[in-house]
Amino acid sequence: MGEYKLLSKIKSPHDVKKIDENDIPKLCTEIREKLVETVSVNGGHLSPNLGVVELTVALNRVFNFPRDSIVWDVGHQAYTHKLLTGRFDDFDTLRQKGGISGFPKRGESKYDDFNTGHSSTSISAALGIAVAKQIAGDHSSTIAVIGDGSFTGGLAYEGMNNAGRFKKNFIVILNDNKMSISPNVGAVPRYLTTVRIQPWYIRVKRITEKVLTKIPLIGNPLKSFLRRGKSRIKNLIYKNTLFDCFGFTYIGPIDGHNVPELENALQAAKKINAPVILHVVTKKGKGYQPAEDNPGEFHGIGQFDIDSGEPISSHKGFSAEFGKLMCELAETDKKLCAITAAMSQGTGLSTFARNYRDRFFDVGIAEEHAVTFGCGLAAKDMRPVFAVYSTFLQRSYDQLIHDAALSQLHLVLAVDRAGIVGSDGETHQGVFDVSILNTIPNTTIFSPTYFEGMRKSLTTAVYVCDGLAVVRYPRGGELYKPDDFGEESIEYNVYGNINCQNLLITYGKLFSYACKAKETLAKTGIEICILKLCKIKPISDDAVAIASEFENVWFFEEGIKNGGIARNFSDLLFQTKFDGSYHIKAINDKFVKQMSVSEALSMLKLDDEGMVNIISKDLN
Amino acid sequence: MGEYKLLSKIKSPHDVKKIDENDIPKLCTEIREKLVETVSVNGGHLSPNLGVVELTVALNRVFNFPRDSIVWDVGHQAYTHKLLTGRFDDFDTLRQKGGISGFPKRGESKYDDFNTGHSSTSISAALGIAVAKQIAGDHSSTIAVIGDGSFTGGLAYEGMNNAGRFKKNFIVILNDNKMSISPNVGAVPRYLTTVRIQPWYIRVKRITEKVLTKIPLIGNPLKSFLRRGKSRIKNLIYKNTLFDCFGFTYIGPIDGHNVPELENALQAAKKINAPVILHVVTKKGKGYQPAEDNPGEFHGIGQFDIDSGEPISSHKGFSAEFGKLMCELAETDKKLCAITAAMSQGTGLSTFARNYRDRFFDVGIAEEHAVTFGCGLAAKDMRPVFAVYSTFLQRSYDQLIHDAALSQLHLVLAVDRAGIVGSDGETHQGVFDVSILNTIPNTTIFSPTYFEGMRKSLTTAVYVCDGLAVVRYPRGGELYKPDDFGEESIEYNVYGNINCQNLLITYGKLFSYACKAKETLAKTGIEICILKLCKIKPISDDAVAIASEFENVWFFEEGIKNGGIARNFSDLLFQTKFDGSYHIKAINDKFVKQMSVSEALSMLKLDDEGMVNIISKDLN
Repeated sequence: MGEYKLLSKIKSPHDVKKIDENDIPKLCTEIREKLVETVSVNGGHLSPNLGVVELTVALNRVFNFPRDSIVWDVGHQAYTHKLLTGRFDDFDTLRQKGGISGFPKRGESKYDDFNTGHSSTSISAALGIAVAKQIAGDHSSTIAVIGDGSFTGGLAYEGMNNAGRFKKNFIVILNDNKMSISPNVGAVPRYLTTVRIQPWYIRVKRITEKVLTKIPLIGNPLKSFLRRGKSRIKNLIYKNTLFDCFGFTYIGPIDGHNVPELENALQAAKKINAPVILHVVTKKGKGYQPAEDNPGEFHGIGQFDIDSGEPISSHKGFSAEFGKLMCELAETDKKLCAITAAMSQGTGLSTFARNYRDRFFDVGIAEEHAVTFGCGLAAKDMRPVFAVYSTFLQRSYDQLIHDAALSQLHLVLAVDRAGIVGSDGETHQGVFDVSILNTIPNTTIFSPTYFEGMRKSLTTAVYVCDGLAVVRYPRGGELYKPDDFGEESIEYNVYGNINCQNLLITYGKLFSYACKAKETLAKTGIEICILKLCKIKPISDDAVAIASEFENVWFFEEGIKNGGIARNFSDLLFQTKFDGSYHIKAINDKFVKQMSVSEALSMLKLDDEGMVNIISKDLN
Repeated sequence: MGEYKLLSKIKSPHDVKKIDENDIPKLCTEIREKLVETVSVNGGHLSPNLGVVELTVALNRVFNFPRDSIVWDVGHQAYTHKLLTGRFDDFDTLRQKGGISGFPKRGESKYDDFNTGHSSTSISAALGIAVAKQIAGDHSSTIAVIGDGSFTGGLAYEGMNNAGRFKKNFIVILNDNKMSISPNVGAVPRYLTTVRIQPWYIRVKRITEKVLTKIPLIGNPLKSFLRRGKSRIKNLIYKNTLFDCFGFTYIGPIDGHNVPELENALQAAKKINAPVILHVVTKKGKGYQPAEDNPGEFHGIGQFDIDSGEPISSHKGFSAEFGKLMCELAETDKKLCAITAAMSQGTGLSTFARNYRDRFFDVGIAEEHAVTFGCGLAAKDMRPVFAVYSTFLQRSYDQLIHDAALSQLHLVLAVDRAGIVGSDGETHQGVFDVSILNTIPNTTIFSPTYFEGMRKSLTTAVYVCDGLAVVRYPRGGELYKPDDFGEESIEYNVYGNINCQNLLITYGKLFSYACKAKETLAKTGIEICILKLCKIKPISDDAVAIASEFENVWFFEEGIKNGGIARNFSDLLFQTKFDGSYHIKAINDKFVKQMSVSEALSMLKLDDEGMVNIISKDLN
């Protein structure tokens, strides 16, 4: 590994075009090596990138980026595009602070046309780009590359429905790897399976391979012939009912690991006078055996050993603990249901999915549906728990208000990856959930620090609360817990001398940092007491009363300041006799870029060192 | 009018079943008279309800509600269902404070299975209900009634994609009235047009009419024959490619104004061992000539004269003023684009749509797409303005963060119906937009009081701001403006004696109430000054500095308190030397039910009387 004779010389798509056709397989091998090598050290998305190596090479050979435009849906499959567009030399900084992003970033390169990170946005964004170019008289092509998984998200259909109005130079590439993050469920993925196994697939494949790719002189006339639309073959190639209904011309399925076939198909797509959907079949994890064998595990991954594919560090975190608890509860509670939006593994629900199949619902990447569907379950007295990453919950805001809270239907949210998440970067930080949930009437929110609090608050959310009830917990596992801490309450804990003058208020995982800060400050002669909230909405009157007795109060919050709990608390505090000082440290109206969790917390002054510095300074 | 011999005797669906088949047309006429009579006085949704009279009668004859379940998408077409399920006597309280809701409400009747109001939720909610019943061993039917307009919303597809897993007793009724709120755009509506005009439509229609409806003895065997799936006729009736792809069995199209035909189709749908989509073609506004002639105008309407169909009061409001300004700007600015999510008329964009067709985009009821598409336009240097009602903007929260703000793409939002909206009730109040926009970094928000401020801030948002820039304005027109007010600033205005001790801070239309309160208080010897904010994010330092000089400060806010501007302001204020009192009056963690705008503001103590009372009390 590490030679990269061909790859290291590629500085732009122009260089990709110059590579001899016979060297393409070697180039693809080098790319795969670079991908595995980098991700094994830096972590990142591996299987999605291994699956689109040939597709990306073909795209960069056929199209003229950045004149032509490309939007990568989700964007975690754009590593090869980065390698081919001048970012090979810096690629070892992938996902690190100040380094190459794991997602397309307009600010990083002119070859990244649109920032992505969340699913199903690409068709809409590409359509906007295409329409803008059309108005400007620019006839270059615009391409959206979207996986079959992203096609379970409703936004993709909104985009499709609108793309019909656009007439030319608009190509949607359906990267069909037969699974998204987890194997797909739902009707559309089943439908795609049908398309793949229909007998004419074989015939068409033979035709495209034999005629289009191998005999270029005949290939072109044949393509014109196909485009003239008179032949029966056209129907075989172009006919696909689902996409036809949306006004798209369908081409496919194409072998996504055959560069010449891909190039031909892309050339054909370029010339059709209609929006085109090009159905490309790829293998997730292609070319690296451990990832081929277990593409789910290698979807997004931390450091791993290249030879064995074994992760270097592995910890049992909140997700696993949540999954365990759900199984325990489900054993006796026949009404408990679990919902996930394509994250059964990530949210810890794999065992639940196996053991309670009738009450487990993977709805695809469809967070809006997940909430409304859960409300339907709740309307008929089931007990639904929707496990979702904080950042993806943002997509359900209207449904949370409109379908859950307004009707006071009892839906429980298990919000995973709450807070700073690290190297996935700004699109994935879980820093908005508190602020948006906080706006919703009839809502209870718990933000525990330890497994104990998570277990208790989830049980309370499911069996004691009514309406919308939320338990949020961080990525990873438990952090520091002082020996003398005692039992975690789902309301609040006071830790330290309640009669001192200084109070630090916080919730969630920041409590661990606060405990360390308390110890450090003690050494410098500053005594602080800590008020650790677990139920953050509604805020307990008793907790406010306790705080009102202190002279100096600091609230540290791992979330956006606007709409956060610190501001609510201050409002309540100033309604008491409190006349001390009140300081808020939260994320003040800015996005947090990619870096490790500890780097981010340090930058935000939300770690123990930050707390110590702020408190010491304020007291001087 | 007003006799209702048949209708007045119907207390439950059981009574609908007892009506003689020959009397059904008379019943439908009575229902239409009641609808027109009530809506002409109370305002409400007329055309959607007139379109589904026969369908609702047929549903209540074939199914056993509430044992069978029904979810009405959007819900503004559920008036007939209310009339037939025990709510005839109270129907004149429609949309009034404490009265019958204009939307289904679980709390109102056991015949309302799920609350709706926003579009495209019904399939997901109904699926949840159906699954819960299946788990409980309940084999009753579950029905979603959804318009073709709602089918432009992505959530409907997320629901369809998941419904395939459900095997029986699940019926989606596609109420196809060839337009949603405005005539539909996009590929799917075009597709439905194709379905309607295909020659076999005529043939199938003849078959169903002649055979199924008129010869019951043969009808049943024929239906079994169709279900056995051996005949070519089956393909004619059941074959529909779009819905097939989602795993649905298609029946249709059916004449939505022919009750016997509808009953037969519903009976057939009930017995099919698969999720069924029943395509019903209806005429929006059916049976009331002014509404048939202009269904858009009679979609949602205030009081009107029954004979002429003329609205009783009509005012030029902010929407019209916005539309006018957009046209003025577009004349010289060839990059200005307008986007609406099926609300071209409501947002005042009709003229823009006619005059600048290339730069006008009605994307359907697809607020997520609207934002991401707009970001695509912005990425290629167009100037997109997305005009959207505050309540519907809730559906775009993730896209606002992920596609607009994170990339600092310059998208302008014109947020109409911001604040309390009145009798549409709690699902439609525009009270969350400030709190959610306030969480988003890189965002500028203006909330003007008068047309002047709206014009200036929109122009600033389009030509001076970068990133996400928002102008929000209320439903209706300008309210009270004191003669000595002067020129509205897009930053802030100080109105009154800056050297007095009492400061009232507010923004948006509440300023008009504040001015009246100021006058009333003056008469009782209390002098107040008013700080009227227009730019509410970021808050001007100068405005905070001015406020810090006062002894008593009140902030009145027509929006949810959590995450609102009053709390931001307090945070900034307490960082100054301010040591006065600070009081916030906003909507404190509750939903605002249906009532007139003035009733709601009075209840919330946000009108002049409320302000006077609060300030007087606080000063005593």
